[in-house]
Amino acid sequence: MIFKLIALALISHVIDRLGGPMRTVFWDYENNSVKMIDQRLLPFDFVIAEFQDYQDVAQAIRDMYVRGAPAIGATAAFAMALAAQQSRSSLKEELLQELEEAAELLDNARPTAVNLSWAIKQQLALANDSKLSDVDAVREGLLQKAQKIADDDVELNRRMGFNGAELIAEGDTILHHCNTGALATVDWGTALGVVFAAHEQKKGIHVLVDETRPRLQGSRLTAWELKQRAISFDLIADSAAGHFMRTGKVDIILVGSDRTAANGDVANKIGTYNLAVIARENGIPFYPVVPTSTIDLDLANGDLIPIEERPSAEVLNAIDRPIAPLEVTALNPAFDVTPHRYVTGIVTESGVVYPPFKRNLRRAVEEAQAGGP
Amino acid sequence: MIFKLIALALISHVIDRLGGPMRTVFWDYENNSVKMIDQRLLPFDFVIAEFQDYQDVAQAIRDMYVRGAPAIGATAAFAMALAAQQSRSSLKEELLQELEEAAELLDNARPTAVNLSWAIKQQLALANDSKLSDVDAVREGLLQKAQKIADDDVELNRRMGFNGAELIAEGDTILHHCNTGALATVDWGTALGVVFAAHEQKKGIHVLVDETRPRLQGSRLTAWELKQRAISFDLIADSAAGHFMRTGKVDIILVGSDRTAANGDVANKIGTYNLAVIARENGIPFYPVVPTSTIDLDLANGDLIPIEERPSAEVLNAIDRPIAPLEVTALNPAFDVTPHRYVTGIVTESGVVYPPFKRNLRRAVEEAQAGGP
Repeated sequence: MIFKLIALALISHVIDRLGGPMRTVFWDYENNSVKMIDQRLLPFDFVIAEFQDYQDVAQAIRDMYVRGAPAIGATAAFAMALAAQQSRSSLKEELLQELEEAAELLDNARPTAVNLSWAIKQQLALANDSKLSDVDAVREGLLQKAQKIADDDVELNRRMGFNGAELIAEGDTILHHCNTGALATVDWGTALGVVFAAHEQKKGIHVLVDETRPRLQGSRLTAWELKQRAISFDLIADSAAGHFMRTGKVDIILVGSDRTAANGDVANKIGTYNLAVIARENGIPFYPVVPTSTIDLDLANGDLIPIEERPSAEVLNAIDRPIAPLEVTALNPAFDVTPHRYVTGIVTESGVVYPPFKRNLRRAVEEAQAGGP
Repeated sequence: MIFKLIALALISHVIDRLGGPMRTVFWDYENNSVKMIDQRLLPFDFVIAEFQDYQDVAQAIRDMYVRGAPAIGATAAFAMALAAQQSRSSLKEELLQELEEAAELLDNARPTAVNLSWAIKQQLALANDSKLSDVDAVREGLLQKAQKIADDDVELNRRMGFNGAELIAEGDTILHHCNTGALATVDWGTALGVVFAAHEQKKGIHVLVDETRPRLQGSRLTAWELKQRAISFDLIADSAAGHFMRTGKVDIILVGSDRTAANGDVANKIGTYNLAVIARENGIPFYPVVPTSTIDLDLANGDLIPIEERPSAEVLNAIDRPIAPLEVTALNPAFDVTPHRYVTGIVTESGVVYPPFKRNLRRAVEEAQAGGP
């Protein structure tokens, strides 16, 4: 069931029906369903989609109702809880079999963000834990774990945001790509979370917002979030970023990441590599902002990260309107890889990580797993 | 008067009503008017606009009915001829005064392309020539000169195209930005003219076409021209160019130029600088293709080239459809400057010019003025 909540013109903040802050994705405890903001429709319509079948959640991830590595991770965790609820099994062995099937479907929804498989692995490990002896304990455990992944995401994003804000000087202009805000996470954000933290510190920042073709996450989502928080910004075409860097208008670049390899190579929204190369050429610091759940220590380098090729229709249209002649073919890699030599540092919830990344990223992940530095 | 010529679906080539090849801009000798393809509407509608007032031509240049440095130059030359025809003066002194006014209005229509002022200067010099003793001789002379500028453009574009085609190897993939084809010139094209020449030579090329936000000259115009000529290509988001360069999918980059400074710094469509920096980083040759009328020997370097700031509405919309929340501000520099250190060589009608550009560009301009090497 999908229903339109309120006309966008009336929204000044993301709020739920009770007037509290609303999360990008959450569990509805009344209906036992997964709900999420349908981000495909923003900023023109604000619609909450409701899901009672994990297979529909997998399709929604594929169709980008929800996007952003951390948000996808939390969504997959909730979807695993939903799969357990849907199951009619009374034997744990049977339930585990069904959860394995759900895990495989969800894991294939999108290939690049490692948070997806990270969250699914967490849920499978929990379900297999012998301490959860019956099916109801597994069902309850998976929901609690999903809720904890979501709650932790918000808390660690705030921490990461203030870690990163130490890099921001008074009056800085920050160049930002794609959307990495509340909508890319459960709440608050990664790279945009640093912007929000610097804004809370009243640093008088200005943001240059890449529109981020083809899906326009910058013009649709980041512009929407910055406007809600009354943060000063200008929208620019992705191509214009270089001009502003070369003419001294950019102090720092902040981006997210969908998967960071053990050596610090960063996969992120297509166009990130361009920014990193031009930033280094102009002596501008370039920082990905990534929760440690995004760091894949099992991958030696970025060339091993699978890059999703999305439908050509995304390039052939802008918000469903054709921009090219009929029967034109398009290539649409959704992500690119930025080699670590272009990366100044990586902001995590454990602090800002500098080269050598191979050693220091592992340390940051270990610190995060041990519960902070 | 504007009329819709034929539905686009029926057009396989740009043709006029008699079935011959059609130019981007031309003089209608029956009606004594300037006609041009309204490029704002392509590829969805094919409309020929007709102008009987040079002030409307200036507005059409500003509104981008016609764009591309060489096409703008020819249009301005015809507009000067139109201004002379409109004049009721019978005294040459009076006519020259009116032409000076027309020149000023036209010269201010767009600031970056030097071909505009180049063509206007040519026309003013002719009008002031004492050999043209009466107003009718001036009127006739300006029209003949405009026609010659247009005819020469087509001829030198073809020559330039085959000069550049020597850089293209069998099976090359060429990355191209904006539109530099028949529509950016009177006919044939500059950078895309090299592509057409290599295609005529049956080199089995493939083109990666940057869509070129915000006005989408790549997806709307270049895709249309390549499709008409059945040249193999894929459309990509501007941001994806770096990914294809880094992963070894691009052999050479060809772009146009709206003004090239004496030292080889190149002003061209926003995003060109990005391509040049990333190309050098990946060892990919980067060649602007420019008629010598685009080379401004009076400007020592690219930082002296005026960069047009166009309306923010172009960034806030894609083909007139909003892509951002209401009341968002945007910055829209239409061009950027690529410093000459990123330029492998510059293709002209006098041949391919290599560094040192300061000496060799001057030589190319002199050769062109002397009637070829």
